[in-house]
Amino acid sequence: MIAKTPPPPYYAVIFSNIRTQVDEGYGIMAEEMVELAEKQPGYLGHESVRDGLGITVSYWESLEAIRNWKMVAEHRLAQRLGREKWYQAYKTRICLVERDYGFENGGIND
Amino acid sequence: MIAKTPPPPYYAVIFSNIRTQVDEGYGIMAEEMVELAEKQPGYLGHESVRDGLGITVSYWESLEAIRNWKMVAEHRLAQRLGREKWYQAYKTRICLVERDYGFENGGIND
Repeated sequence: MIAKTPPPPYYAVIFSNIRTQVDEGYGIMAEEMVELAEKQPGYLGHESVRDGLGITVSYWESLEAIRNWKMVAEHRLAQRLGREKWYQAYKTRICLVERDYGFENGGIND
Repeated sequence: MIAKTPPPPYYAVIFSNIRTQVDEGYGIMAEEMVELAEKQPGYLGHESVRDGLGITVSYWESLEAIRNWKMVAEHRLAQRLGREKWYQAYKTRICLVERDYGFENGGIND
């Protein structure tokens, strides 16, 4: 569930969002967007959690990969419907991951 | 619930984690760490969600502010107990936020 990403530098898109109470197609579209993102050149992985606030972080090789994904037709439609129906508020942050470290099952991976 | 951050550049620390089933003091420590982080120089805000996977993103003015927070004695203790008891796995990513945009109540804030 924690994305396996390569050594930095790489990019992260932090998408923090609050849903409206409108469901109309949201679940299907969200699944389709994950499947489509996974096929994009430069996609490295993603992590997603919702509990009131939703946070989805997707990881990418480059700014160009992020730009290309933002322009994919189905994704543009999803973005428009998101603003019109599904999201009460959101914030997208484009970030350069400069350093990372982790820990799993008793071992530190620095 | 979405953090109000200043215009970029600023820093984000993405802390993705999976808990163990051990509770011993976790809730109190988590609350104390939020209160303590909020008092740190250079702290800009944070967002936190858990639903199986936990994602906490904290926002900071500079790398130096992040380094100083990492070294605070109570936080070091929390990090050690986290590795020993509370977390099965985690990944910390230090990121430079280069660009952000958002949307709230029908208006786009670009």
